[in-house]
Amino acid sequence: MSDIRLIASIPSIPSLHDTGLQSRVQHLLDQKTKPVGSLGQLEQLALRIACILGDEQPVLQAPQMLVFAADHGLAARGVSAYPVDVTWQMVENFLAGGAAVSVLARHNGIALNVVDCGVARDFAVREQDPAHKLPVPGEPRLWRRKIAYGSADCSVGPAMTAEQCAMALRNGMVLVQQLPGNALLLGEMGIGNTSSASLLLARLCNEPIEAVTGVGTGLDAAGLARKVEVLRQVLALHAGAQEPLDVLCAMGGLEIATMVGAVLQAAVERRVIVVDGFITTAAVLVASRLQPAVLERCIYAHRSGEPGHTRMLAHLQAQPLLDWQLRLGEGSGAALAWPLLQSACAILREMASFASAGVSQQS
Amino acid sequence: MSDIRLIASIPSIPSLHDTGLQSRVQHLLDQKTKPVGSLGQLEQLALRIACILGDEQPVLQAPQMLVFAADHGLAARGVSAYPVDVTWQMVENFLAGGAAVSVLARHNGIALNVVDCGVARDFAVREQDPAHKLPVPGEPRLWRRKIAYGSADCSVGPAMTAEQCAMALRNGMVLVQQLPGNALLLGEMGIGNTSSASLLLARLCNEPIEAVTGVGTGLDAAGLARKVEVLRQVLALHAGAQEPLDVLCAMGGLEIATMVGAVLQAAVERRVIVVDGFITTAAVLVASRLQPAVLERCIYAHRSGEPGHTRMLAHLQAQPLLDWQLRLGEGSGAALAWPLLQSACAILREMASFASAGVSQQS
Repeated sequence: MSDIRLIASIPSIPSLHDTGLQSRVQHLLDQKTKPVGSLGQLEQLALRIACILGDEQPVLQAPQMLVFAADHGLAARGVSAYPVDVTWQMVENFLAGGAAVSVLARHNGIALNVVDCGVARDFAVREQDPAHKLPVPGEPRLWRRKIAYGSADCSVGPAMTAEQCAMALRNGMVLVQQLPGNALLLGEMGIGNTSSASLLLARLCNEPIEAVTGVGTGLDAAGLARKVEVLRQVLALHAGAQEPLDVLCAMGGLEIATMVGAVLQAAVERRVIVVDGFITTAAVLVASRLQPAVLERCIYAHRSGEPGHTRMLAHLQAQPLLDWQLRLGEGSGAALAWPLLQSACAILREMASFASAGVSQQS
Repeated sequence: MSDIRLIASIPSIPSLHDTGLQSRVQHLLDQKTKPVGSLGQLEQLALRIACILGDEQPVLQAPQMLVFAADHGLAARGVSAYPVDVTWQMVENFLAGGAAVSVLARHNGIALNVVDCGVARDFAVREQDPAHKLPVPGEPRLWRRKIAYGSADCSVGPAMTAEQCAMALRNGMVLVQQLPGNALLLGEMGIGNTSSASLLLARLCNEPIEAVTGVGTGLDAAGLARKVEVLRQVLALHAGAQEPLDVLCAMGGLEIATMVGAVLQAAVERRVIVVDGFITTAAVLVASRLQPAVLERCIYAHRSGEPGHTRMLAHLQAQPLLDWQLRLGEGSGAALAWPLLQSACAILREMASFASAGVSQQS
C-alpha cells in the first residue's frame, strides 16, 4: 500500500471529453478546401491539440522543454555503456548549448529548462539561474531541484524513500506552475535510466523483462545479457511493489518521479504534453496509472529505437508522429517534432473553407 | 523512339559520389555528443543534405515551393471525384493564401510559386506577377507557363505532342534557373493527375494498373473500378510508348512534364529536392529514367495514403520522412516536413563534439 504522503499529493484530473467541441472542430476540418480526411494524421493532431486547449482556433504559446536529470545507483551494476559522469557532463552540455536538445530547442523556438532532480554533482551557480537572477531570454535555465546525489541502487533496496518520491512529485508540480505557456515538452538525462523505464514497464504492464530491455546508449550483446539479469534480480527483490507509486519508489529514478509530478500538473492545467522517447513515456505511464485522463493531454513525438518503447506505446494506445529510430533521449525527438504541432494548429486556424474560397465540392 | 527535340533538352547530371565528403560528414556525426547512430534517420537526413550541397556545414537557403498546375483531358472520362473547375479554383486559393500548402509554406518560411503549366482557364493579371511587377516578399507568385488549356484526353490519343512536352521540360528548367536558394519543394494541382501518376508507374515499372490505382481525391468503389478500367484502356492504346519521354507524352500531364524539367535543372544545380506525394514522385520517376543521378538529390517528405505511392517509393528505394496517410498533394507534405530538414542541418552544424564539450565517451 502506497504511503499516504504520496497519495495525498496526486491532484485529480478530469477527462477532457467534450463531444460538442470535438464535433465542431471535426466539422471545421471537413469544410477546409481539401478532400475530407486527406491530411490524415495532421488532422488528428490538430483535433487533439484543439481538444486539449479547449479552443477551436488553438495557438501554441511559449513551449517549455523540461529536461529532468538524475543519476541512478543501479548504474554501478554496469547496466550502461557510458560512465556515470556523463550525466553531469551532459547537463553542462545542455546549458552550454551544444547538445542535440539544445540545438533543436533553439532552432524550433522552444525554451530549454534543465532540472537537476538528483545528479551526483553540484553545479556552479549560473547567472541564468532563476533563483539567482532574472533569466536571460533564450538562454537555457538550470532549475535546482536535487533530492539526492542520485537514487539508491535498486538492486539492494528501494531507489528512493516515500519521502523523497513525494518531494520529487511536488517539485515537478510546482515547477510547472512557475512556467509560462501552454505546452510542455518532456526530456530526460540519466545514465542508467533505460533500466528504470524497462523495470516500470515490466512491472506495471506485466511484460517479460527480456522483451522490454534494450541496449540503451549502446551495450554489446554481453552487456545486454548482464543488464537483463540485473533487472530480473531487481524485479524479484521488489516483488511486493505493485501499486504505481510503490513501483516508482522501488525502481524509478528521481528524474522520472519529478517528471511524473510535472505531467500531472501539466494535465491539470490543460497544457499540451509532448512526450519524447522510452523514459519520458515511462513517466507518462506511471502518471496515467494515477490519473488516466493525463493520456488525453499527451502527444507522442516518436517511436524510439529502444524495443520496449513500441510495447509501451501499444499499452498507451499511442500513435507516434515520427518513426526515425531515435534513441538519444534528452527530449531531442520532442523538440524535433514540435514544428509539426505548430503546422497542425495553423491548418486549423488559417485554411480556407470551400465556401470562403469559392471552391466546388465533391460531385 | 523519342523525338529528338525532347532528347536534346535533357541535361547531363553527374553522380554526387564523393567518398571523401561522405566519410568526413559521417565522422563529424559520430563525434557529436550522443551514442553513435542514436539520432537515427535524422543523421541520415543530415548526411544526405550535406552530400547534395557539397558542404559539411550545410545551410538551407531561400526554399522555393513550386506548385505545378494543369488540367487533364482524361478527367472528362470521370476518373476524379471532383469537377475539373477545382483546378483553377485551387490555384486561386493557393494565391489567396487559404490552401493547405499556402498555410504550411507561410508558417515554415517557404516561398510559394504557383506555375500554370496548362490550366483550362486564364488567370487575371496580378500585381505580384513577376512579369508584371516586382514580387512582394512573402506573397505567393503566379508563373505563367501555360502550354495548352489542359492536356488532351489520353484515352483517345497522346496527352501532349512531342513539341508541347519539350516546351514543358524547357519551361521547368528555365523556371528553376530563375529561382534563388538551394532547395526546391515539389507540389502539384490538377484534377485527374493521380491517373497520370498511376499510368506512368504502371508502364515504367511494369506494375499492374489495378495495384497502383487509388481513390485519388475520394472516389467510391464504383468510381475506382471505372477509373481502373479507363486506365487499362489508356495503357492498351499506348502500348508502343515504352521510352520514358514517349510515356510522358502519351500519358503524362503538362504539370508533370514541366516538373520533370524542374527536377532535372534542380539536380544540375545541386539543389535539395523535397518530393511530396504520388504525383510529384511520378515526375521524379520519369526524371530518374532520363538521368538516374537525380535520385541522389531527392528527399521524400512522406508516404502517401495513395496505394501506388508505396510501390513507387520502393522502386526508387526511397525512405520517406513521414507516414501520415496524407493524400492531398499540393506540396502539403513537403512543406510540412521542411522544418525536419532544417533541424538535420542544425544538428550537423551546431552540436558539440565529445572533445569540445568535455563529455566522456563510451567505456
